Amino acid sequence: MAKVMEKYSKERLSKMSPKEYRSILRRSEWSGVTSTEPWPCAGYAQTNLAIVPEEYAFEFLLFCNRNPRPCPVLDVTDPGDPHPKFLDPEADLRTDLPKYRVFKDGEITDEPTDIIKYWRDDLVSFLLGCSCTFVQALKAANVPFRRYGAYPTKIPCTPAGRFHGHLVVSVRAFYNSHDAVRAVQISSRHLLFHGPPIHIGDPADIGIENLGKPDSFNPNRPVVEPPKTGEIVMCWGCGVTPQMVAMESKIPFMITHRVAHMFIADRLIEELAIL
Amino acid sequence: MAKVMEKYSKERLSKMSPKEYRSILRRSEWSGVTSTEPWPCAGYAQTNLAIVPEEYAFEFLLFCNRNPRPCPVLDVTDPGDPHPKFLDPEADLRTDLPKYRVFKDGEITDEPTDIIKYWRDDLVSFLLGCSCTFVQALKAANVPFRRYGAYPTKIPCTPAGRFHGHLVVSVRAFYNSHDAVRAVQISSRHLLFHGPPIHIGDPADIGIENLGKPDSFNPNRPVVEPPKTGEIVMCWGCGVTPQMVAMESKIPFMITHRVAHMFIADRLIEELAIL
Repeated sequence: MAKVMEKYSKERLSKMSPKEYRSILRRSEWSGVTSTEPWPCAGYAQTNLAIVPEEYAFEFLLFCNRNPRPCPVLDVTDPGDPHPKFLDPEADLRTDLPKYRVFKDGEITDEPTDIIKYWRDDLVSFLLGCSCTFVQALKAANVPFRRYGAYPTKIPCTPAGRFHGHLVVSVRAFYNSHDAVRAVQISSRHLLFHGPPIHIGDPADIGIENLGKPDSFNPNRPVVEPPKTGEIVMCWGCGVTPQMVAMESKIPFMITHRVAHMFIADRLIEELAIL
Repeated sequence: MAKVMEKYSKERLSKMSPKEYRSILRRSEWSGVTSTEPWPCAGYAQTNLAIVPEEYAFEFLLFCNRNPRPCPVLDVTDPGDPHPKFLDPEADLRTDLPKYRVFKDGEITDEPTDIIKYWRDDLVSFLLGCSCTFVQALKAANVPFRRYGAYPTKIPCTPAGRFHGHLVVSVRAFYNSHDAVRAVQISSRHLLFHGPPIHIGDPADIGIENLGKPDSFNPNRPVVEPPKTGEIVMCWGCGVTPQMVAMESKIPFMITHRVAHMFIADRLIEELAIL
């Protein structure tokens, strides 16, 4: 795999159309992360994926509706249909993500590069907006920030049926008030991609200790310098939340993307702004 | 009833808090329309109501998600729970609207002032934003317009399961471009109350003939003068759409508000703006 992946530098990937990018995923020629610069198919919308059996679909959709900051719904497929027909009808959610995660009874049991063998006629797929999208809007607006990645918080999500668990957030530090205000304004234009931040200030307030250091949630987290005095730290709802919920709620069967290995839709970020 | 209703002039109602207003509804002392000026509890958010059995709840929620302009979801109750615990936990959806509509197999069978006798343990209630809310924002911004009311269109909604039917819109004419642009901007701030218009231009394009005259959809529609040259007519998704859908889809049992007799939540309009 390593050799094939070298064929596609991140620079080359970033200039691809979603259609071309998808074709290399379907040939299993790439399975890398989509969440760091240069982004594959730069300018196109990235989404989280969550798949549950039909029996759980109402409760999960209700969970998303009750928790729109971590779980903004872009598309919900009909049972058994792997094509997100409103967001991107030519996509196949069984093959068109670089990596998946399979949860059984709240445990991660597999991280395959496709989910053909797991597919069932009763599976309902949810595409939920991803912050990789509004981050591209921040870059386009020349708003710099320091990136800290995703952290679980002590904030419980609003439960729905059998779905409950704690909010996961993505954390960024801004260098001054002007940039922080711009980040609130710009992310608010992208309500389908988590919208505005849910917390401004010390992340310890919401249960995030040791910002920028490896922890049990992410033992491989790269070390990042702590925020400096005067910087403004803001936390946004994160699409990893359904994975936390799958684990905390011990949902019998659920498939998601693997963290940072997102679906890329054939829709420009600005097509979906202020919607 | 008429005598009691006189006790509460529209002017007096407009100054009431939602709590006080609710108390007169619970005593069956008022059952008028909420959709015209002066609005009861002016400044507070008005919503549409749709109630379906749990068996239909996933498909209806999906219908709303796929048709967010007519059906923006503010709250969904747990089965059997008449209290919208996220939007307004002290409200009781069985009594706190001035008038309801009961649909059986797509026919209107009753228009009661409460739904106590229809209540069941498997009913799930949906509160959907109403344009009476952004209209108050237009007035607050001094944007005048001519009001035409609600019309069915030839635009099919995106179906979900057993729910299908045509989009209903509310129609307004603006006197110049500046006002029309302001109306797009201001309604876009209220995404939970139908957001921006879905059509700009001749309403005949979307199947609306005889604008401003009584028709089979509304035989009692007041006559309103037609738009003049240079005026801009705009149409917004309307919360009557679920009633059209109940009829077209022949849903076995569904309860809604009676048209123009909305629920008023104990939440200020601006509390829910840009959310």
